[in-house]
Amino acid sequence: MSKVRVHNLAVSLDGFATGEGQSLEAPFGHAGVRLMEWFFETRAFRSMNGKDGGSEGVDNAFAAAWGPGIGAEIMGRNKFGPQRGAWADETWQGWWGDNPPFHTPVFVLTHHPRPALTLAGGNSFHFLDASPAEALAAARAAAGGLDVRIGGGPSTVRQFLDADLVDHLHVVLVPIVLGRGVRLWDGLESLEERFTVEAVTTPSGVTHLTFTRR
Amino acid sequence: MSKVRVHNLAVSLDGFATGEGQSLEAPFGHAGVRLMEWFFETRAFRSMNGKDGGSEGVDNAFAAAWGPGIGAEIMGRNKFGPQRGAWADETWQGWWGDNPPFHTPVFVLTHHPRPALTLAGGNSFHFLDASPAEALAAARAAAGGLDVRIGGGPSTVRQFLDADLVDHLHVVLVPIVLGRGVRLWDGLESLEERFTVEAVTTPSGVTHLTFTRR
Repeated sequence: MSKVRVHNLAVSLDGFATGEGQSLEAPFGHAGVRLMEWFFETRAFRSMNGKDGGSEGVDNAFAAAWGPGIGAEIMGRNKFGPQRGAWADETWQGWWGDNPPFHTPVFVLTHHPRPALTLAGGNSFHFLDASPAEALAAARAAAGGLDVRIGGGPSTVRQFLDADLVDHLHVVLVPIVLGRGVRLWDGLESLEERFTVEAVTTPSGVTHLTFTRR
Repeated sequence: MSKVRVHNLAVSLDGFATGEGQSLEAPFGHAGVRLMEWFFETRAFRSMNGKDGGSEGVDNAFAAAWGPGIGAEIMGRNKFGPQRGAWADETWQGWWGDNPPFHTPVFVLTHHPRPALTLAGGNSFHFLDASPAEALAAARAAAGGLDVRIGGGPSTVRQFLDADLVDHLHVVLVPIVLGRGVRLWDGLESLEERFTVEAVTTPSGVTHLTFTRR
C-alpha cells in the first residue's frame, strides 16, 4: 500500500506553520522566510532551482526526501494561490510558475472547483471539493502505486492528521516565536500516541521531528 | 550583577507547559508526568530524592544546572500550592513537604500575602503581591550576590520574559501534543531576537533549548 507522507513542514515554538497576512508577495505572511531558512541553504533546494552548492548534512537529507517515491500531491487551495472565494481568473496558473517543482499530478482542495490545468514537467493541477479520504482516493488512483504527499498548508495537514490518514510526518521545529498565524497542532491532542517519534537537532539550529505511524 | 535564570521548563509541541485541571494530586493536570519523564530519569533528580543511579548524559547536565549559583527563587502561587483566592489555612506549608528542594529563600507571587514560613534546610517562603521587577529586587536582596531562579509556573515565567528580566532560559521541548493547559509562549512574539538560541536533542527524545540574553 502506498504511504501518505508530509515533508519539511516547519513550525515555530508556538506551533505556527505560517504567519499572519499571507499574500502573493508574502506566502508565509509576517513570518517571511524565517521558517524556511534552513531549507533554502540545502543542496536539495538549490538544485531544485538550478543552483549549485548548498549544505549536504542532515538538513539536506531531510530536504531531499521530499521527492523520491511520490506519485501525487494533495495541497490546500492556499498553497496553490492566495485568493479566497470564487476564482476571479481561471487562467491564472497559481504561484508556482510555468514549471512547478512537483512533477506529478497535484490535487488542490477547494470549495470552488475549476477545470484542470496541465503544465510542463509532468505537472497537472486538479481541483476537488472533497473530504480528506475522498481526495486521497483520487490522488492514489493517479499516483501509480507510489506514495502521496500532503503538501500543506498547515490546515490541510491538520485535517489529514485528524482523519488519521498520515503515515509519515516530518516537522521542522524552528526556534522562533511567531505569535500569530495558522497553528498546526490544534485539535491533535495525544497525536504522538499513534506514532513513533524521533528528534534530531542540526547545526542550523532547527530540530527535525519524524512521526512514523505505529 | 547576578543573573536571572529559568531551568528545566518543559513544554509540549503545542506550547503548553502544564496541562489542564491542576490539583493537589495532579500538579501538572492532565499532562501527568509526561512533561517530566526525561527529568525523573536523571541522576540529578534521583539524588535530590535520596536515590542512587540515574542517567548521566546531556539530560542530567541540564537537570543538574538548576541549583548551583542560585541564591533565591521566585515562583507563582500555583507552584506553592493548588489553591486559588484567599488562604483557607495559613498553616499549610505548600506541597513541597518539610524539607523543600530549594534550600534558599523563595518568593511566592500572590495577591493574598500571608506571614513568611521558615522550614528546614535553608528554605523560607515569603509571600509578595508585587510586579516582576519588585519581586526581583526583593529576591536579589536575599540572594547574597548569587543568581535568582524564576521557578515557574509558565505564567510566572512568561511575565518575567515579557518584562525582559530573564538572562538565561532553559526550555525542554517534549514531543507530545497536550491540546490544553497553560501556554508558555503567548504574547512573546519575536522573543528569539533578544537571545542567542541553541538546541540539542538527547536520546530521551527531548530537545533542550537554551536562550542566552544577547
